Amino acid sequence: MLVSGGLDSATVLAIARECGHTCHALTFDYGQRHRIELEAARRVAKALGAVEHRVLAMPIGEWGHSALTDPAIAVPEEPTPGIPVTYVPARNTVFLACALGLAEVLGAEDIYIGVNSVDYSGYPDCRPEFIRAFEQVANLATKSAIEGRPMRIHAPLAELSKAEIIRKGIALGVDYAITVSCYQPDPAGRACGRCDSCRLRRAGFNAAGIPDPTHYQ
Amino acid sequence: MLVSGGLDSATVLAIARECGHTCHALTFDYGQRHRIELEAARRVAKALGAVEHRVLAMPIGEWGHSALTDPAIAVPEEPTPGIPVTYVPARNTVFLACALGLAEVLGAEDIYIGVNSVDYSGYPDCRPEFIRAFEQVANLATKSAIEGRPMRIHAPLAELSKAEIIRKGIALGVDYAITVSCYQPDPAGRACGRCDSCRLRRAGFNAAGIPDPTHYQ
Repeated sequence: MLVSGGLDSATVLAIARECGHTCHALTFDYGQRHRIELEAARRVAKALGAVEHRVLAMPIGEWGHSALTDPAIAVPEEPTPGIPVTYVPARNTVFLACALGLAEVLGAEDIYIGVNSVDYSGYPDCRPEFIRAFEQVANLATKSAIEGRPMRIHAPLAELSKAEIIRKGIALGVDYAITVSCYQPDPAGRACGRCDSCRLRRAGFNAAGIPDPTHYQ
Repeated sequence: MLVSGGLDSATVLAIARECGHTCHALTFDYGQRHRIELEAARRVAKALGAVEHRVLAMPIGEWGHSALTDPAIAVPEEPTPGIPVTYVPARNTVFLACALGLAEVLGAEDIYIGVNSVDYSGYPDCRPEFIRAFEQVANLATKSAIEGRPMRIHAPLAELSKAEIIRKGIALGVDYAITVSCYQPDPAGRACGRCDSCRLRRAGFNAAGIPDPTHYQ
């Protein structure tokens, strides 16, 4: 389970648990400016019954080139056309590649990721065709797949709106107050309410007709 | 350019340079027991004209599960059937994913990797079908591909025998004495001569009719 500490991956963790999986949570310390999400990821993994939570240090953020890893690039506070500057080059490919390695080490055959491409920022590596292509890689790359234990990459939120994701999570008992979606939270983990991620999240609660439990600055 | 410090990636670097590319070398410090290959990678990158050499720390070796990362698992010194215990789960997927991110940051469109599957250890992530599948991922994952600059993953050794690789490298001026292929070199970087990697390398020089410049223990 890739767990970021945000709303989506918390929902995915609840879904995977509901499916009866023993969940191992994996989070990346990749130089993100919203590093406080690591704390949120720890809370989420614990609250939703993951049997372990691993944080992998992965200094790809040093390369910059994204508002999430380069302090000199401002996080946009208005919608922008195209793929936004918060895109981190190849991030989900790196995350899934590492999850693939850990899954093989653990003897797991199911990898869960909380991408979706309905109410989303337009990142190419959140789309279902990317996930399907990565699954093909997973099944060509690994010893376990060659030996007859194929890997499945699950993206159960792929076709859901943000409101549908939230309704599903609430039905499964997710406490979204412990999650952090904001790209530029303050040191207490409170959300800015203005970045793309905050706007998508707030709109989702509104559309779902569920009170927004987010701690704002 | 993924550069390990071994014979194959040195040859690939020479090939990429011959093609006129400006080469950026990327090496991984992933907890490998043959960590001295990082020194060899630095020498190779310098000798073959890479404009920079980056070493990315990537603690996937902590997960163990391979003779290359777990000191408790012995490196085999005789041929073994099937995929050997030196296989590192998802290693080339992780390496290519990181190379993909760096390529996008650099504005590069060509990624070179020294895999081959003729005289090789049987690792699934060295086969042409894996490379082709990863290229598809690369072109679905990245902003640059979406914006019309597709990524190409080059594996110019894919269909060559070890002897052919060596002949090509010699023709391009590669000094194989500075490379380290051994899985368990001594602290001076001298090869054991017995592991799978040493055996493939030595057989390659023999088949090519070229004196083996390897420093053995």
